[in-house]
Amino acid sequence: MIKKYINPEIAKWKSISKRPVVNLKKIEPLVQKIFDKVRSSGDSAVLQFTKNFDNVDLSNIKVKKSVLVNSKNKVSEEFKQALDVAKKNINKFHLSQITKPNIVETSDGVKCWQEKKPIEKIGIYIPGGSAPLFSTILMLAIPAKLAGCKQITLCTPPNKKGEVDPSILYTAMLCGVSDIFKVGGIQAIAAMTFGTETIPKVYKIFGPGNQYVTVAKQIATSYNVAIDLPAGPSELLVMADSTSNPSYIASDLLSQAEHGEDSQVILVTTYKELLNNVEDEINKQMDSLSRKKIILKSIKSSRFIFFENNSKAISFINQYAPEHYMICVKNEKLFIKSIKNAGSVFIGNYTPESAGDYASGTNHTLPTNGFSKQYSGVNIDSFLKAISFQKINKKGIKIIGPAIEVMADKEGLQAHKNSIKIRLNDL
Amino acid sequence: MIKKYINPEIAKWKSISKRPVVNLKKIEPLVQKIFDKVRSSGDSAVLQFTKNFDNVDLSNIKVKKSVLVNSKNKVSEEFKQALDVAKKNINKFHLSQITKPNIVETSDGVKCWQEKKPIEKIGIYIPGGSAPLFSTILMLAIPAKLAGCKQITLCTPPNKKGEVDPSILYTAMLCGVSDIFKVGGIQAIAAMTFGTETIPKVYKIFGPGNQYVTVAKQIATSYNVAIDLPAGPSELLVMADSTSNPSYIASDLLSQAEHGEDSQVILVTTYKELLNNVEDEINKQMDSLSRKKIILKSIKSSRFIFFENNSKAISFINQYAPEHYMICVKNEKLFIKSIKNAGSVFIGNYTPESAGDYASGTNHTLPTNGFSKQYSGVNIDSFLKAISFQKINKKGIKIIGPAIEVMADKEGLQAHKNSIKIRLNDL
Repeated sequence: MIKKYINPEIAKWKSISKRPVVNLKKIEPLVQKIFDKVRSSGDSAVLQFTKNFDNVDLSNIKVKKSVLVNSKNKVSEEFKQALDVAKKNINKFHLSQITKPNIVETSDGVKCWQEKKPIEKIGIYIPGGSAPLFSTILMLAIPAKLAGCKQITLCTPPNKKGEVDPSILYTAMLCGVSDIFKVGGIQAIAAMTFGTETIPKVYKIFGPGNQYVTVAKQIATSYNVAIDLPAGPSELLVMADSTSNPSYIASDLLSQAEHGEDSQVILVTTYKELLNNVEDEINKQMDSLSRKKIILKSIKSSRFIFFENNSKAISFINQYAPEHYMICVKNEKLFIKSIKNAGSVFIGNYTPESAGDYASGTNHTLPTNGFSKQYSGVNIDSFLKAISFQKINKKGIKIIGPAIEVMADKEGLQAHKNSIKIRLNDL
Repeated sequence: MIKKYINPEIAKWKSISKRPVVNLKKIEPLVQKIFDKVRSSGDSAVLQFTKNFDNVDLSNIKVKKSVLVNSKNKVSEEFKQALDVAKKNINKFHLSQITKPNIVETSDGVKCWQEKKPIEKIGIYIPGGSAPLFSTILMLAIPAKLAGCKQITLCTPPNKKGEVDPSILYTAMLCGVSDIFKVGGIQAIAAMTFGTETIPKVYKIFGPGNQYVTVAKQIATSYNVAIDLPAGPSELLVMADSTSNPSYIASDLLSQAEHGEDSQVILVTTYKELLNNVEDEINKQMDSLSRKKIILKSIKSSRFIFFENNSKAISFINQYAPEHYMICVKNEKLFIKSIKNAGSVFIGNYTPESAGDYASGTNHTLPTNGFSKQYSGVNIDSFLKAISFQKINKKGIKIIGPAIEVMADKEGLQAHKNSIKIRLNDL
């Protein structure tokens, strides 16, 4: 039975919007301990933790070139063709995000511009689990390569046999990953933070993971490594009215709910009947799904909400700040232009969330847990940094120099003032 | 006596590039304690810490409207005019960074685009000290306002009289800051992280500070608040050849050195005589400077380096990854196009670093400590987040749907596959 709310008052929105997140502060000491050990002992610590946590005794953590090349014989043609469709679209969309330098003369003789350059060394973490999550490699390695990142390191935990699934290897090879290491969890993040004898240090770490990986990425930032995004459980909010299709919506909510027990799905509607119609469809469709057990648990933190008008629905949605936001309404323009906070938006009855997860071209690494209030999802800029430039001629420094002298003086920075004075004296 | 290196071998570059940074891990427990207290007790904790750390007993931490308005009578006309010059240029440059959505049809019937929206609530921290650092307000509030941020909160420590310098107040008013609070240090960052009865919670915190503020901002990120950049001591690297002017370069190095005892200045040159010429000029100019004491200390961590060719100089500079990078050479094009890592670049003999600190239009909040390898300085995008959109029609889902089904199946996500199947069945 899904929790339903009819016209909830604003005072209740915060509690309705609460995500099923856990406090991770208590994990920090363990993570810090593993970081310290990997920092001081390098590969030997990594191997030891792999033995402890993954129950595999590896002698070599780097995937051999021959194994990598051979992966193409271990995946189906159908799979390769599907990857090609996804790759083409992801490539095209991220390519369109590249901006060119734009030189501006802010004052006569003062030229300023910005240029974006690739982050040279990046790391990608791909978690283990019951199925190989190759799609995240598409989402991270394709834009990294487009941006011009030189070294793309991938870490992923080995299975019980000490191997990595061929679909991971093939996708990594297809997308230009430089090196793959069979290392998972905290030790993988620590290894990419400090570098070991085998695993290179990187400047920025991308990718999802469990709560240990989440805390490890947070701790990595205290060692000067950047990260893509703080992580949280995945979520979908669907806004729908009477023009929507209840069975489609149910299928989308279910696809979100199967991600994990902590996934959250929200239905907001201005059409009251939809609350029950979608629930009925969910119950109908759920029975045939392989991950029904997970869905039954995640559905517990889900909410179906009726609002009497669009304006209230929009306000609620913006304060919820959904990771995935699906709009299935007649007046979709109103909802699109009112968006303040969201990760990725899916418009209309034929735009399921799963399209964005795999192949529409948009990125699926997105801000969860309300983070879309302040974070972008991964895009081409995640792999670049902007450098600013200025070039001032004699005329320019004559014009802006006196203002700089006044301000430097006021801030008590006499040497700053002097660097202007010494030039102006010559002109 | 400045440390000089003649053609240092690559193996030594890492140690030459070492910044005078201190380990901040031991400060963390104190910062965490203050965070916990501000979280649980709000304003009363903030007032208590202000009493403890700033030695001021305040009853009201919010700057009154009347005090704010009156600030315009307490600053000089000359100062107001200087601010206007800076504001115009900063505004113009940051305005030029705004990008428009670009709709791409990744596949027939699959439209994708990105829109940038303002971060609604931001916080600016301005440190105290011997002089009022109003220039950072220009650098943060002007682009925040341009980006469309709705609520701009500013925290700055009160002086011994419990007041804030009029130049800070006037600049804040000029740039559209919403509210100013007389709160400094860790308690200010904690207050903006959690919100108190008086100080609003923000989504992203900007601004410089001492090591306590640096750690506080790092800890804020573990409570879901974004920050502009990890902080470190400021630095300048000048690349110069025989066409440069030793006295100008000395004035620029000195302007960087006066920032703080931990500032670092580096001279790289392919013209050996410059090493002594610039040092002589530094010694000559230093005597008349008010912050000579600070300069004498910071100059200790400075290095003057000769390389026999441009190519080695360029490699060294990219691995150093300077915050401020000044290029004073004949072949400036070569150096500009070779830049991989830098915060802000100053080109030619009439482009002193102080121009970028105040008025050229570029932002002075920049990545220090080698962070330019992975971070941009503050720009318009720091106040925005990108949201991705997709709209797929019947034709589009028919084209990409089968690939999504294959990939979802491979990842064991049957409900994802079903959300495509249920639509394709209807078409």
